[in-house]
Amino acid sequence: MTSTAPSTLPAPDAVRTVACVGAGVIGGGWVAHFLARGYHVVAWDPAPDAEARLRELVAAAWPALTQLGLATGASVDNLQVAATLADAVSRADFVQESAPERLDVKVELLAEIDRAAPEHVVVGSSTSGYGMSEMQTGATLHPERLVVGHPFNPPYLVPLVEVVGGRASADWAVRWASEFYRAAGKSVITLDSELPGFIGNRIQEAAWREALHMVANKEATVAQIDQAMTDGPGLRWAFHGPCLTFHLAGGDGGMAHMLDHFGPALRYPWTRLTAPELTDELRQDMVEGTERVVNGRTTAELIAQRDRRMIAVMRALAEVDRQEVDESTPGR
Amino acid sequence: MTSTAPSTLPAPDAVRTVACVGAGVIGGGWVAHFLARGYHVVAWDPAPDAEARLRELVAAAWPALTQLGLATGASVDNLQVAATLADAVSRADFVQESAPERLDVKVELLAEIDRAAPEHVVVGSSTSGYGMSEMQTGATLHPERLVVGHPFNPPYLVPLVEVVGGRASADWAVRWASEFYRAAGKSVITLDSELPGFIGNRIQEAAWREALHMVANKEATVAQIDQAMTDGPGLRWAFHGPCLTFHLAGGDGGMAHMLDHFGPALRYPWTRLTAPELTDELRQDMVEGTERVVNGRTTAELIAQRDRRMIAVMRALAEVDRQEVDESTPGR
Repeated sequence: MTSTAPSTLPAPDAVRTVACVGAGVIGGGWVAHFLARGYHVVAWDPAPDAEARLRELVAAAWPALTQLGLATGASVDNLQVAATLADAVSRADFVQESAPERLDVKVELLAEIDRAAPEHVVVGSSTSGYGMSEMQTGATLHPERLVVGHPFNPPYLVPLVEVVGGRASADWAVRWASEFYRAAGKSVITLDSELPGFIGNRIQEAAWREALHMVANKEATVAQIDQAMTDGPGLRWAFHGPCLTFHLAGGDGGMAHMLDHFGPALRYPWTRLTAPELTDELRQDMVEGTERVVNGRTTAELIAQRDRRMIAVMRALAEVDRQEVDESTPGR
Repeated sequence: MTSTAPSTLPAPDAVRTVACVGAGVIGGGWVAHFLARGYHVVAWDPAPDAEARLRELVAAAWPALTQLGLATGASVDNLQVAATLADAVSRADFVQESAPERLDVKVELLAEIDRAAPEHVVVGSSTSGYGMSEMQTGATLHPERLVVGHPFNPPYLVPLVEVVGGRASADWAVRWASEFYRAAGKSVITLDSELPGFIGNRIQEAAWREALHMVANKEATVAQIDQAMTDGPGLRWAFHGPCLTFHLAGGDGGMAHMLDHFGPALRYPWTRLTAPELTDELRQDMVEGTERVVNGRTTAELIAQRDRRMIAVMRALAEVDRQEVDESTPGR
């Protein structure tokens, strides 16, 4: 939807105060992230023990965040817990909604936020499953500033945020939210359309369902599946996505060779997921898209970069293992 | 198949010489791995430029392997390239076959290896797609010592090896190969049955097909897919598999809560892969299997361990980025 941004809209990097509505695992993780990036945070959650649990979560995350590097002025003292939803959102430059994943709850809550937050305040929803089109139906005042800003757990560590609007969302709000999350230190993907599960969850869910199938058929155990991931493809996926991984599997011929050589293997029953037909157009989109990611690097350069990163990841993980063993060994 | 191991079978940790048949990206990667673990390697590949390419691959991998730590006596000088297949395998205590992924090629090659290698020499095939039952059909002498030993690229860095026999493989050969790969520094999963794609590839292929679907439908670009992986789930999968990841998504309730709470989400169209029915039995297998992986750790302990590892991975990757920028900046 095209509409004009309100004249009072702040610059994305001028935001000082973020309201976090819902302070469970995801909402609380957002609180920790925003505090570490130097924002003031006003949290609200209807649960009776919410404040204690929230402060506990933030305290548990703070050492990790300190190690990663806090923004100037960042402090757990910049957290306030509001008594009402209206109080929280009326004081904020941005609202992150992280309510339980129930459509009726989301619709009602977003309508309430819409009534209480000034017109220029953009609202990002942490939903992992719903489209904003179905969630913004109760918002009668300014549904155009409601967008999805979907994080991964824990939001204070995983960089990815997927931003997408609904039918009633304005283009300016989607753009503004993307820029705001970037200013807040996130790795942002802005989607053009409401793809259920966005991108990250579609990939994650494909892996998860395949895992469930294997367990259901007694083909593999939970332990084998987790070992296969962490000691296999998972080690690479921390720095090379599936496309760049398979580009390297193609040797010097890269993605094009991989598709031409292993294309027929798409008909093998390697997962329960039916593969799309490898049309010329799909082949071209994959090859050209990969070329953009490769960005001029040779295969030898990519391999050297991959190996450096894999070594770094493996050594870093081994070092953490060693430290934990040392700490749990009495007398050391 | 049950049969008695030949009396000349060496102990898995007594192997000194490995024959690598096929020396492309995967076979050459195996050569580098075995050399780094201190073995003598005899390689054979019918390609005319095979030896030069192999020595180049080993030289390129050696700095990474040195950084990870070489075994006592490990040296690139322990590599010999044989003139014939028979010469290579007749001198070895173990054979790793890494021919191109074509069934007729594999059948013929394994038959030839079977004719040339002493009875007690176990043969592992790097195949990613075929079952040993269909590959061992040409071997007339001792098909019982032929098994699959499936690595991930690059075999000199990724720890995972999946071991599984075919209909004519002996149990002792599957056990011996598993123990040998472990002695050679690998993370081994021994499968009970010939699951197409084994475990790691089934998971990887599910993710890959979902990626192809998204590109085919213009829902996401290659760059967005790779970014979603490396900045999202991929960062966690380097050390926590999909099951432990979702166990933590269940909060204090763990896997059981996750399945009960998000079970209905399995009906969402989050991937093109149809989910299995969440029966009581599947639920129980997932919960009990996860309990075994968790092995008594509390959720708080798991979260602290996850955060330490994620920080370590992110800092290690950032440090490699910095070094590469420094090296490519003139005058620094």
